[in-house]
Amino acid sequence: MATQQKTIDIAGYDFGRTATRSPMTEEDLDHLLQTVMFTDDDRAALRTAGDVLEDQTDRVLDVWYGFVADHPHLIAYFSTPGGEPIQRYLDRVRPRFAQWILDTCRRPFDRAWLDYQEEIALRHTVDKKNVTDDVDASTPIPLRYLVAFIYPITATMRDFLAAKGHSLEQVEKMQQAWFKAVTLQAALWSRPYARENHA
Amino acid sequence: MATQQKTIDIAGYDFGRTATRSPMTEEDLDHLLQTVMFTDDDRAALRTAGDVLEDQTDRVLDVWYGFVADHPHLIAYFSTPGGEPIQRYLDRVRPRFAQWILDTCRRPFDRAWLDYQEEIALRHTVDKKNVTDDVDASTPIPLRYLVAFIYPITATMRDFLAAKGHSLEQVEKMQQAWFKAVTLQAALWSRPYARENHA
Repeated sequence: MATQQKTIDIAGYDFGRTATRSPMTEEDLDHLLQTVMFTDDDRAALRTAGDVLEDQTDRVLDVWYGFVADHPHLIAYFSTPGGEPIQRYLDRVRPRFAQWILDTCRRPFDRAWLDYQEEIALRHTVDKKNVTDDVDASTPIPLRYLVAFIYPITATMRDFLAAKGHSLEQVEKMQQAWFKAVTLQAALWSRPYARENHA
Repeated sequence: MATQQKTIDIAGYDFGRTATRSPMTEEDLDHLLQTVMFTDDDRAALRTAGDVLEDQTDRVLDVWYGFVADHPHLIAYFSTPGGEPIQRYLDRVRPRFAQWILDTCRRPFDRAWLDYQEEIALRHTVDKKNVTDDVDASTPIPLRYLVAFIYPITATMRDFLAAKGHSLEQVEKMQQAWFKAVTLQAALWSRPYARENHA
């Protein structure tokens, strides 16, 4: 819990401090949680996953950044419109992405969390992309990639969840809870992408 | 392959006959396939899955329809704006949904398939929802549920993939290929939901 209480000094990491408010109600969130079949057991499994992943986030990020770097159609969104990767941007996003892993495992899905999901969402769209890091990269991240990323972000986590000697059954529980939490967040991040009346 | 060649007589099932064209290029599709890490092994695993699932689609549909029926916020989209479930609508969608399982496993991801993904997508939005079945149900399916459904549609498939005596490793391969194919399609279905320049 200590990780949640202290102020975390990561550039552009505004959890609990953003002025952005999510238009999603508690009931909307509850319906989404039901739709991804999220239970108290998943909450517990995510807490365990947080402990398992705490000292591995850098290696997870190596995998994810490697995946993006290997695909020109993905690194484009960290690059100038001319196609030059922006190292400053990649460097600034990375610790936020690492913190997002731990937040996914440890933060309660409450109002502050919901508001920050909206902030993250906006940072993928024309509304706020590049603003936080003051860069000029390709904008926006297309919605289809936001959705498609559910697969690699879920599947690549399995080896890391299995790296601390838990039973296959425990790893599978963590993996499913992670899958649900990632899908839930992609659903929330899709909100500002939707045309009128379709969110 | 016989299943793909013969004309399938399901109300509203217009695969290969729809006038809808997907604006996605072959390159767009290739990039999406790379993003969900889809390989030739996944194609082979899906073919096996098609054989495994062929005589189980009715039971899969029982599970999915049960899940929707158990959640008022989901059955609403098969109901009148007043909240009355429309049995005719549920009955007509069901064989198309069963065919979708087999199409996901067996159809090549080619131009005809891509065009039909766009048709399926439109049938979830204000553009075409209810039209095919001439009903007056709540419209549209919100984008967040389209994304969130990746979880139940993926996770509930595992027991069915394991029901025909394949090894754990084979089942896991089929399960991952199914997860990729479902995520790919949700990404394609998100296209007509997106506001300008965000698809």
